[in-house]
Amino acid sequence: MTALQPSRVIDAGSRESSRYEPLSSEHLPDRLGHLVEMIGLIGPADHWRVREVGDGNLNLVFIVEGPRGSVVVKQALPYARVVGESWPMSLDRTYFEYHALTKLGARDPGRMPKVHYFDRGQAVMVMEHLTPHVILRKDLIAGIELPLLGEHLGLYLARTLFRGSDFSLETAERKADMALFAGNVELCGITEDLFFTDPFHDNARNRATDGLDVAAIHADRDLKLAAMEMKFRFCSSLQTLLHGDFHAGSVMVTPSDTRVIDAEFATYGPMGFDIGSLLANFWLAFFAQSAHRENPATLRRYQRWILNATADVWAAFTREFARLWREERTGILGGRELFQSQGDSVAPEIALQARLAEIWQDTLGFAGLEMHRRILGLAHIPEFETIEDPVLRAECERRALAMGRQLVVHRLALPSLASANSVATIIQDCR
Amino acid sequence: MTALQPSRVIDAGSRESSRYEPLSSEHLPDRLGHLVEMIGLIGPADHWRVREVGDGNLNLVFIVEGPRGSVVVKQALPYARVVGESWPMSLDRTYFEYHALTKLGARDPGRMPKVHYFDRGQAVMVMEHLTPHVILRKDLIAGIELPLLGEHLGLYLARTLFRGSDFSLETAERKADMALFAGNVELCGITEDLFFTDPFHDNARNRATDGLDVAAIHADRDLKLAAMEMKFRFCSSLQTLLHGDFHAGSVMVTPSDTRVIDAEFATYGPMGFDIGSLLANFWLAFFAQSAHRENPATLRRYQRWILNATADVWAAFTREFARLWREERTGILGGRELFQSQGDSVAPEIALQARLAEIWQDTLGFAGLEMHRRILGLAHIPEFETIEDPVLRAECERRALAMGRQLVVHRLALPSLASANSVATIIQDCR
Repeated sequence: MTALQPSRVIDAGSRESSRYEPLSSEHLPDRLGHLVEMIGLIGPADHWRVREVGDGNLNLVFIVEGPRGSVVVKQALPYARVVGESWPMSLDRTYFEYHALTKLGARDPGRMPKVHYFDRGQAVMVMEHLTPHVILRKDLIAGIELPLLGEHLGLYLARTLFRGSDFSLETAERKADMALFAGNVELCGITEDLFFTDPFHDNARNRATDGLDVAAIHADRDLKLAAMEMKFRFCSSLQTLLHGDFHAGSVMVTPSDTRVIDAEFATYGPMGFDIGSLLANFWLAFFAQSAHRENPATLRRYQRWILNATADVWAAFTREFARLWREERTGILGGRELFQSQGDSVAPEIALQARLAEIWQDTLGFAGLEMHRRILGLAHIPEFETIEDPVLRAECERRALAMGRQLVVHRLALPSLASANSVATIIQDCR
Repeated sequence: MTALQPSRVIDAGSRESSRYEPLSSEHLPDRLGHLVEMIGLIGPADHWRVREVGDGNLNLVFIVEGPRGSVVVKQALPYARVVGESWPMSLDRTYFEYHALTKLGARDPGRMPKVHYFDRGQAVMVMEHLTPHVILRKDLIAGIELPLLGEHLGLYLARTLFRGSDFSLETAERKADMALFAGNVELCGITEDLFFTDPFHDNARNRATDGLDVAAIHADRDLKLAAMEMKFRFCSSLQTLLHGDFHAGSVMVTPSDTRVIDAEFATYGPMGFDIGSLLANFWLAFFAQSAHRENPATLRRYQRWILNATADVWAAFTREFARLWREERTGILGGRELFQSQGDSVAPEIALQARLAEIWQDTLGFAGLEMHRRILGLAHIPEFETIEDPVLRAECERRALAMGRQLVVHRLALPSLASANSVATIIQDCR
């Protein structure tokens, strides 16, 4: 029942809003115990148990359990948690995340956590507690096969990216939507720096495993030109509302369910950015496997599963995108007057293929950059960080960087997902 | 002195604002006679002479002359003047035009009229009266050569397009700017329809000279696919703040001066849109000439001047864009950390050439569409409309359409402005 109710929103500056104060496990029941949403969902506050579980880079995250159930309470801090108070960061990122979760959630119902309550002044959201879900990265390190994962993520990508675009939205709605997220300038600015620039020059925020030839990468003109070209596309090719941080840490899974979380980097941008970020995280996990699996047959089998998962993502994405193209192309760029209304049903299929070809090229470019920034930049990933032997870690990372370079520099020369997966296999086998 | 003062702005809903009422020549002195800006510039209201001169499609335009000088008063009507009250249109387009004139004007100082006063509630602007300037179209019909025109317009394009882009602006300013103009959704929606869709199917707003094979154009799949591709780029490739309606009716000239007016269609979009709109208007004028000049030598000479003017525009644009690229590339997409700071001054030049190549392809695509919509759509141009003989008019228009199709369908196959001008010459000579 609650899933159908819209979430309650307390605007900053409203009568109910009070001065921002960070929550703590101890005081959370005092602070939020009056919320009818929480009482209704989990029971009265004097029975709540609270755990702080935030392992992300930016926020406080609490699991609050009561006699009738549990919820997640997420609160922004006025700085980046990963760095500390020396990196101040606007609390209003929660405002953009709230809107992104609502909009993206409506575009692929059931895939994102339900938001029950949002208080803009406190930068607090009360959300559905996903249980027994775990962060996808954990399963990728443990070597767990998830048969429905690729299909779920591919459908999510097609539905959110298509339905937030000019192909689906009317011009007034689309432009209001874009203007709203243009306000998320601080987090979008972080992406602009961390994804496209920092990894490719000496920057105090960077770190890398000893033994990687970082200087050679910083001197790689073709790679850096490609990075700047992709940054240009990220900044100016505003095709749809993106999740904006769609990696294996933003996906929670069970063997049969897949959910998408953490949308505070939401921004308008090119479709290939979300797709490429995700595929890159599979390929990164692929190259980390040789450090996590000793048995060669087990290693082979799981690496094969990872590549199959990427194929599932792309197949589900293109299949669903094509279906939406045929059935829901009613927005600014619908173009039915020019084609179907004149009896031409072939032209829209040609246009679809051209669109998918461009999305694919972007996907490769952004994927290659994600593979660099996760090894050379600020935000590393557990798949590599948990490899204790630095020599082995550098070896895995070197392969990932080699593939990343291929993808971004030669993105026009790799026509298919199979060809990209061939690059992965060749680099894994030959070095 | 006044040119250095910022214009005074009365916001809608402020104490000074009153209920919207259209101005008339008769009542204008009563209504605006209290404005210190007008009294200061032209003298007291009891000596004003007022003429309504609006020949555009949307607004009231008055020239107000007083003992000390003259100003232009421009006021929006709550409907499109070209169609009538049956096409209601937001008064707030003046708000976007005010901001566009201010921003574009600051990016190429002296090229746009100075705005002295803006009242949002009345949708009224008091502006510099450009005199003895005439609308460029008038000179193009009269066969007047303007030696500095192409250079002025090329510089204007380079400066406004570069300085409104991610190459120049920091991320917060750029995104606030984009969000502001995302509000100009109504006029941007008109462009989306009138430019990219209406001309290519049967639409009640269209009209065309008898004898043109409109049905064949409406059945031209390659052309329509290209139109949809360019519409996709117009809607999603938000590179910079555009004038948005940059044709020969938005340029006022004397033999030595060139000014740009009428920015109410301002929107973020691809750089090639403004450039292509402008070049298309030269090429349209080129094909109209054979109806306006009887003497073959005079005709040849003036057609050659028109093509030279397009070459001047593109040469000045690329030269100035390259200068700004080298000297003012300090925005989000500056990229100096990756190149110059590492001693690589070649890479930015490679990136510049790639950028200009993409701008050129867009320019051709948008130019080809402008050439169609001015002949097949709602808003025609005097260069053709003043040709009284419908057979001769259709002949000129047919050539223009043939070139327009080449530009939009084969935009990837025309590497240079010279190659586009060759298409013009060949079509003029062979048919």
